[in-house]
Amino acid sequence: MKLKEIADILEIELNTDKDVDIKAMNTLLEAKEDEITFFNNKKYLDKLQTTKAGAVILQEEFVKYLPQNTVALITSHPYLKMAQLTKYFVKDYTNLPKPTISDSAKIGKNVVIHNGSKIADNVVIMDNSVIMHNVTIQEGSIIYPNVTIYPDTQIGKNVIIHAGNVIGGDGFGYAHTSQGEHVKIYHLGAVVLEDDVEIGANSSIDRGAFGKTLIKKGAKIDNLVQIGHNCEIGEYCIIVSQVGLAGSSKLGRNVVMGGQAATAGHLEIAPFTQIAARGGVTKTIKESGVYAGFPLIPHKLWLKLQAKILGLVK
Amino acid sequence: MKLKEIADILEIELNTDKDVDIKAMNTLLEAKEDEITFFNNKKYLDKLQTTKAGAVILQEEFVKYLPQNTVALITSHPYLKMAQLTKYFVKDYTNLPKPTISDSAKIGKNVVIHNGSKIADNVVIMDNSVIMHNVTIQEGSIIYPNVTIYPDTQIGKNVIIHAGNVIGGDGFGYAHTSQGEHVKIYHLGAVVLEDDVEIGANSSIDRGAFGKTLIKKGAKIDNLVQIGHNCEIGEYCIIVSQVGLAGSSKLGRNVVMGGQAATAGHLEIAPFTQIAARGGVTKTIKESGVYAGFPLIPHKLWLKLQAKILGLVK
Amino acid sequence: MKLKEIADILEIELNTDKDVDIKAMNTLLEAKEDEITFFNNKKYLDKLQTTKAGAVILQEEFVKYLPQNTVALITSHPYLKMAQLTKYFVKDYTNLPKPTISDSAKIGKNVVIHNGSKIADNVVIMDNSVIMHNVTIQEGSIIYPNVTIYPDTQIGKNVIIHAGNVIGGDGFGYAHTSQGEHVKIYHLGAVVLEDDVEIGANSSIDRGAFGKTLIKKGAKIDNLVQIGHNCEIGEYCIIVSQVGLAGSSKLGRNVVMGGQAATAGHLEIAPFTQIAARGGVTKTIKESGVYAGFPLIPHKLWLKLQAKILGLVK
Repeated sequence: MKLKEIADILEIELNTDKDVDIKAMNTLLEAKEDEITFFNNKKYLDKLQTTKAGAVILQEEFVKYLPQNTVALITSHPYLKMAQLTKYFVKDYTNLPKPTISDSAKIGKNVVIHNGSKIADNVVIMDNSVIMHNVTIQEGSIIYPNVTIYPDTQIGKNVIIHAGNVIGGDGFGYAHTSQGEHVKIYHLGAVVLEDDVEIGANSSIDRGAFGKTLIKKGAKIDNLVQIGHNCEIGEYCIIVSQVGLAGSSKLGRNVVMGGQAATAGHLEIAPFTQIAARGGVTKTIKESGVYAGFPLIPHKLWLKLQAKILGLVK
Repeated sequence: MKLKEIADILEIELNTDKDVDIKAMNTLLEAKEDEITFFNNKKYLDKLQTTKAGAVILQEEFVKYLPQNTVALITSHPYLKMAQLTKYFVKDYTNLPKPTISDSAKIGKNVVIHNGSKIADNVVIMDNSVIMHNVTIQEGSIIYPNVTIYPDTQIGKNVIIHAGNVIGGDGFGYAHTSQGEHVKIYHLGAVVLEDDVEIGANSSIDRGAFGKTLIKKGAKIDNLVQIGHNCEIGEYCIIVSQVGLAGSSKLGRNVVMGGQAATAGHLEIAPFTQIAARGGVTKTIKESGVYAGFPLIPHKLWLKLQAKILGLVK
Repeated sequence: MKLKEIADILEIELNTDKDVDIKAMNTLLEAKEDEITFFNNKKYLDKLQTTKAGAVILQEEFVKYLPQNTVALITSHPYLKMAQLTKYFVKDYTNLPKPTISDSAKIGKNVVIHNGSKIADNVVIMDNSVIMHNVTIQEGSIIYPNVTIYPDTQIGKNVIIHAGNVIGGDGFGYAHTSQGEHVKIYHLGAVVLEDDVEIGANSSIDRGAFGKTLIKKGAKIDNLVQIGHNCEIGEYCIIVSQVGLAGSSKLGRNVVMGGQAATAGHLEIAPFTQIAARGGVTKTIKESGVYAGFPLIPHKLWLKLQAKILGLVK
């Protein structure tokens, strides 16, 4: 899409004649010369100054920080404009090649596999599951019945996805107008499940807004777990039932999260950290350890605290 | 069904010869002359006195409050009798006309659409979804794969329902016998989703017991959310993942509920109120504001309180 | 499988010539002469001493407690070896007879019923549901659309299973290697739902590791509930939405668990106990009563405590 077209859609005046062809939307950090991004949070000013994006949607006062070759699309509501634009970058899946399915794959009844998808050797897809466009499933993976895999999902080897899962749905992201209405951010990224991942029944893993939601090798996820867009789950993590991970949570390897635990978004958890059941993680955890409670504190302190609290009435 | 028949089913002696034909069950407030209701809670005595119902199941001591033209069905267990009766008022879907489906609608593979349903222009229903009886879906709405829509659900324009959703299941309602057994309340109401509503993956919205569960225009609901029977979600509400709303919760417009927050049933939340993640709402909130905790308190106070609590061990 | 074969798979040296034929894996308590079990927890030493198992995987120091006719498979990692072995005892469903389906059963569209399954009179299985191998469904039960029933599930009479349920998935069980990798415990047990059970939308009930997960007569389970492997839910229990029961929780009859409540695993709850919404049960409850909070305390005390806590900032 020509930059001019974009400017027209967003009702932004373009102060350049550069006729850039924009192929995708992306983050400040990852956008390339033929991609557009947005700037909405001063925290990321350093990323703005070094972005390689072809164009950035931003407020006037930050234009001065832009790299020389990057075009500014100036607006007082960059987040809202970004959201409005996502709709136009949803992929067109209409001209994809027919799916390729290995002869050794076992495909159940009423399974639907859409164009562009690739099903490798010895994959099992059970009855009534739906594999949408451009999905790849590698050797030996098993999809139980009634699973939905959204477009562009990449599934590694020997992955097990139990019944009722929804992998790759849109993240829960909206920009808000001054009238309190919500403008949908169409999610343009994907979900990547590495080898040996297992996911319990009726869980949901959202695709990235831009970029990917990544579940690394050997991570195990229980039933009814929510994993938001752009999360990164480290190797061999254990995520127990009914855990909820808000968008862009990054868990190091072998992190354990007990049942009904949760994270707020945009934070990191150090490798080998254990979060007790119902622990609520609201800040980055730099030091590995065992934590509990909401707000989260070291587990030993939590035990001591509970005793103290109970002492108030005993 | 004749009133006499109803009395026989419930083993209640009828002390009138009025041969009323009862067409439906309904609430005290909404029942009409040809409908039957029940009275089980003194809190609603004013509603009993002004009900327009043709008949009321109630205890003997309250008969004196009944309007003149309303027949009393006297029992010491009105709630249980009401529950037993619901079974007989479940709609008969056997003689409905074939579904009407617009030519411009895109219907996926293995989609089942039952009689009485109407699918409008440009609706998309993806593979393996099931649309039960008497469902209406208006222009431009999108149903992702493996969704189940129960009978009588009404879906507005440009609604998006992600994969794995269950819309319109029976509410979790039972009357209890003296032996501790549970008598199912068959849910006779419906779910209404207004225009521009979006619902994330694997959520569930129960139909009304009588009347409807209503999700108003532009409300956005995340993954794995539970919405009980007869809830009312105001315009542009934001309901984050794993929230649970118990039956008959009424949220004003632009209410935000953070992840894993919840309500007890039969309460109201003022417009523009924000409930922090995990907030537990147990009483009506009259004053708009930001609240947190369980029990729920103003968010600022909650922050102060957490600091104070932590002080107990530091 | 010959004991020798098992020893080879597990790389354990067998110090007997007994050529026992092992037919299944089971628990210390329930294993028979032709079954193998494991010992990993000193708490169960009495069960080791009285086991009827043909063979036990255990550490060397406990061999002296074994009954005379039981063969020892000695390893320093019995839990890990047990996990590795489960894979070899997954049932072979390839030579089962065709399913038997009563003429009076109503089977919807795109329903898949696998070999070995038996569908009784007047059962209703709605569109797009999948009944895997060896499932029995008794008279009058109703399965709503898009449900998945895993192999070996036994469903009683007049059971109602709402849309999107997953019954019988593998429990969330892994043994861990010294490198932090997880070895899957293939779940070899089943789920048993007794008569009159009802299960709300999008819930999940895991099958037993060995033995069964049991939901007793008349128990009612709401939407989005998680029930772990080997749980036992007593007659007429009420399990409200978003409750999570960890593995091997045993609830007596008429236990009520409020919304979002949870249990840790391997504990019991006395009959007629009520757990308030969000109550977190971490220990066995011997005395019936009303409890709340996390950690759990008597409900009255919890109310008093909350008032006291709030007093800290007022």
